[in-house]
Amino acid sequence: MDEFEAIARLFRPLSEGAPEAFGLSDDAAALPPRPGFDLVVTKDAVVEGVHFLPGDPPGLVARKLLRVNLSDLAAKGAEPYGYFLAVSWPAHWGDEAKTAFAAGLAQDQAEFGVRLLGGDTTSTPGPFTASVTMMGWVPSGRMLRRSGAKPGQALLVTGTIGDGALGLLAAQGELAALGDERRAALADRYRLPRPRLALREGLLAHASACLDVSDGLIGDVIHMEEASGVAIQIDLERLPLSEAARAFVERCSDPVAALAELATAGDDYELAIAASIPEAMMLAVAAAEADIPLTPIGRIAEGTGTLVLHKGQPVLLTRTGWKH
Amino acid sequence: MDEFEAIARLFRPLSEGAPEAFGLSDDAAALPPRPGFDLVVTKDAVVEGVHFLPGDPPGLVARKLLRVNLSDLAAKGAEPYGYFLAVSWPAHWGDEAKTAFAAGLAQDQAEFGVRLLGGDTTSTPGPFTASVTMMGWVPSGRMLRRSGAKPGQALLVTGTIGDGALGLLAAQGELAALGDERRAALADRYRLPRPRLALREGLLAHASACLDVSDGLIGDVIHMEEASGVAIQIDLERLPLSEAARAFVERCSDPVAALAELATAGDDYELAIAASIPEAMMLAVAAAEADIPLTPIGRIAEGTGTLVLHKGQPVLLTRTGWKH
Repeated sequence: MDEFEAIARLFRPLSEGAPEAFGLSDDAAALPPRPGFDLVVTKDAVVEGVHFLPGDPPGLVARKLLRVNLSDLAAKGAEPYGYFLAVSWPAHWGDEAKTAFAAGLAQDQAEFGVRLLGGDTTSTPGPFTASVTMMGWVPSGRMLRRSGAKPGQALLVTGTIGDGALGLLAAQGELAALGDERRAALADRYRLPRPRLALREGLLAHASACLDVSDGLIGDVIHMEEASGVAIQIDLERLPLSEAARAFVERCSDPVAALAELATAGDDYELAIAASIPEAMMLAVAAAEADIPLTPIGRIAEGTGTLVLHKGQPVLLTRTGWKH
Repeated sequence: MDEFEAIARLFRPLSEGAPEAFGLSDDAAALPPRPGFDLVVTKDAVVEGVHFLPGDPPGLVARKLLRVNLSDLAAKGAEPYGYFLAVSWPAHWGDEAKTAFAAGLAQDQAEFGVRLLGGDTTSTPGPFTASVTMMGWVPSGRMLRRSGAKPGQALLVTGTIGDGALGLLAAQGELAALGDERRAALADRYRLPRPRLALREGLLAHASACLDVSDGLIGDVIHMEEASGVAIQIDLERLPLSEAARAFVERCSDPVAALAELATAGDDYELAIAASIPEAMMLAVAAAEADIPLTPIGRIAEGTGTLVLHKGQPVLLTRTGWKH
């Protein structure tokens, strides 16, 4: 397939139902305004060997690319709308790989209700590289910010923390002691994030601040702390762990250091949320209804800085990173 | 500079004056609707060694990246608004190259009135790769399409054709016979396209169809022909040439084949326009006022197919490509 064939055969069907994309046959798309709503826009790129492993199936690469962007929409309380894709194919991605990549896009388009609106395909002498510009809608002025956390509020996190980083190790053949079943579950978490879009209405109604945990929980909470001009305390013993991550921590000679490692590792694609105590309780109800685990892991206070405690004792940095 | 330093030092200043970008400090931007306008969105990527030469100055790479996207806005009659950037830095792009890249963005932001609204930076083990998602505004439903050409209309083109492809040869050290001055002028055309945004109001008022000539004039006119469901005739002897391109054609053993080569080569970033004869005359006045050359090179007819003539004689394909 040359570039035009790939667009016609693989990508044009992904724009069906979106008249604003003109069947990908024009220089640009024309997006009509949605009165009363802001267009939320985020853009993330992935590079083979940096954000995914060279042998990863193209369909999963496509789905992860959409999901890391959808996770940003989830954190902002936005309803998914559509996306633009730029993809640079290396020579070793043949028609079969390209077709599998497009099939992965189609699968997650259906799951998350987004459509391809435009983009670009090129060749590259380097690794597979792609970027998605993802768009969603929020009621005007209502986008959830990192900067809304206030003293007295609770810090909560969805799902479990650390599985993404452990999943990368598992996908690389590490963590043999955990057994094949746990390693497969962890690798799946690394390869296929679960954007927490089902919590959107609850977040818009009850959250004061929210962000996407992609670079490590503690580092991302520091972003919330700095943007909000507050102090944040994290209780490490309350970190929500999957069964596999708990098994990993229990096997470590220093379990607190292991917890700190998991709290500074990336690829979780969970949400960190600040909400007042009454609103946090309402949010917990919404999360339970959406079948999304939601765990209070700390609190917001006057001041500056992010303090990490384990059973009341400060935990200090190592690595990128933290030391007991 | 690490990723966060690069964002803070190089990119955050490029978002100044755009409150919807939140100083690039959040997961996403929130774009308010502009009542009565559609948001025109286009996305193009560049790869080192594919779209620019490995030794090209980073500032010029940045400006070309913006300009190839702005050229799409120009073709659609859109007013530039802002853009999202994903950039993957190779290890050999140090702080100096990154700073020069950002300075190139700043220079063309000022020239074209756009602001950085968000994006992503990553590392790459491969060549420098970047994509821009460029946004502009058109009055609702007024985006110029490829599909609006009608029988009886004239086909016009801005500027000169073929300089981009000759410029690539010149930048690679070819075309010695043309002399250094012409070669420098051509290489500059390759490295720094001139998006024809100054013709925007004239196009919206008078053009029926328009597209950006980036993949070769004839191939792009075929896109207009197919999208519009018409036949198009191009008179090759009317192809507007720069003095340097004319000197190239005159030195060729088969000047008509040389003209056909220039009409099928890429990187011109001029506009191909269909307009009725009276509207084309009005457009010519607007182009003269904007100091943009505008040349009638053919006509639209009933039927299908793109016919290329030279002084009334059909010119047949070779290469990608055309043969006399």
